[in-house]
Amino acid sequence: MNPKLDFIFKRRSIRKFSSEPVSDDQIHDLLEAAMAAPSATNMQPWHFIVVRDPGLLEDLHRVMPFGKMAAPLAVVVCGDLGNVRRLVTENFWVQDCSAATENLLVAAPALGLGAVWCGVSPIKTMMKRVSEVLGLPGTVIPLNVIFIGHHAEVKEPQTKYNEKKISYDGFKG
Amino acid sequence: MNPKLDFIFKRRSIRKFSSEPVSDDQIHDLLEAAMAAPSATNMQPWHFIVVRDPGLLEDLHRVMPFGKMAAPLAVVVCGDLGNVRRLVTENFWVQDCSAATENLLVAAPALGLGAVWCGVSPIKTMMKRVSEVLGLPGTVIPLNVIFIGHHAEVKEPQTKYNEKKISYDGFKG
Repeated sequence: MNPKLDFIFKRRSIRKFSSEPVSDDQIHDLLEAAMAAPSATNMQPWHFIVVRDPGLLEDLHRVMPFGKMAAPLAVVVCGDLGNVRRLVTENFWVQDCSAATENLLVAAPALGLGAVWCGVSPIKTMMKRVSEVLGLPGTVIPLNVIFIGHHAEVKEPQTKYNEKKISYDGFKG
Repeated sequence: MNPKLDFIFKRRSIRKFSSEPVSDDQIHDLLEAAMAAPSATNMQPWHFIVVRDPGLLEDLHRVMPFGKMAAPLAVVVCGDLGNVRRLVTENFWVQDCSAATENLLVAAPALGLGAVWCGVSPIKTMMKRVSEVLGLPGTVIPLNVIFIGHHAEVKEPQTKYNEKKISYDGFKG
């Protein structure tokens, strides 16, 4: 692993957090990183719900079968379909919001934080439940819930590089 | 912009490239970064087609209405649906491959490279044409074409942070 890219390899899925809160500045920085992502025709079709209220965090845990991690902060990355170029947004919001999510996840370790991506969309029942918990209007679609905090577990930098997943100048299966 | 996150803000969409080739080591490092991305239930449902052949690059330009950038390298990020847990992959491959793509794009500036993401899926005509150019089997779906090279244009670090795209503890439109 090229040490120049350590900031990438340090992103690991962290599921155990201390109770230390995430500061306002850290939340700002995470969202600034997320919103540095590219988007199709620069539509920026995202909306971020910052959740720190303990009751709401508990509600998210309740409705997320694989999202029970006790963390002081969750960011719910949503697609905002209520803009003017609806067709571009409908086609590409998942990709754009996934890029923003990955930026946030890669930024976390540089801020001394850990995070884990828990999928919501396209699982209809989870989309409905998360939307209800957060009071989302019909044009705002929850893509995932990212749990974030100071980590209480240590994971070494990692890649899953696999030569079999690469072809050169055309597909070779 | 927090300077600790400069590696994020340095990712810009670069569309003008010099003719200098991208080395084998650089390609390896870009793909190692891409494959450090998270994926749903760790399925790693991706396949990367590295394109350096001038004829194939020309074919990609021909079939991509917004992908005419003259670059010495393209990486086509594909979803590989030919694995055992097909339902998880069908639901999440776009998100997983988008995260891998964003890792690659963020890695590029740290290697002295620039890159631009040109969307393919879910636009059926483009998916068909790119699949034909690269000889993709039906289970390998092109998500995008990333053109990559040494940049011939300079862009300053940037975010598109927008307070209006954030809500706290529930949606506030």
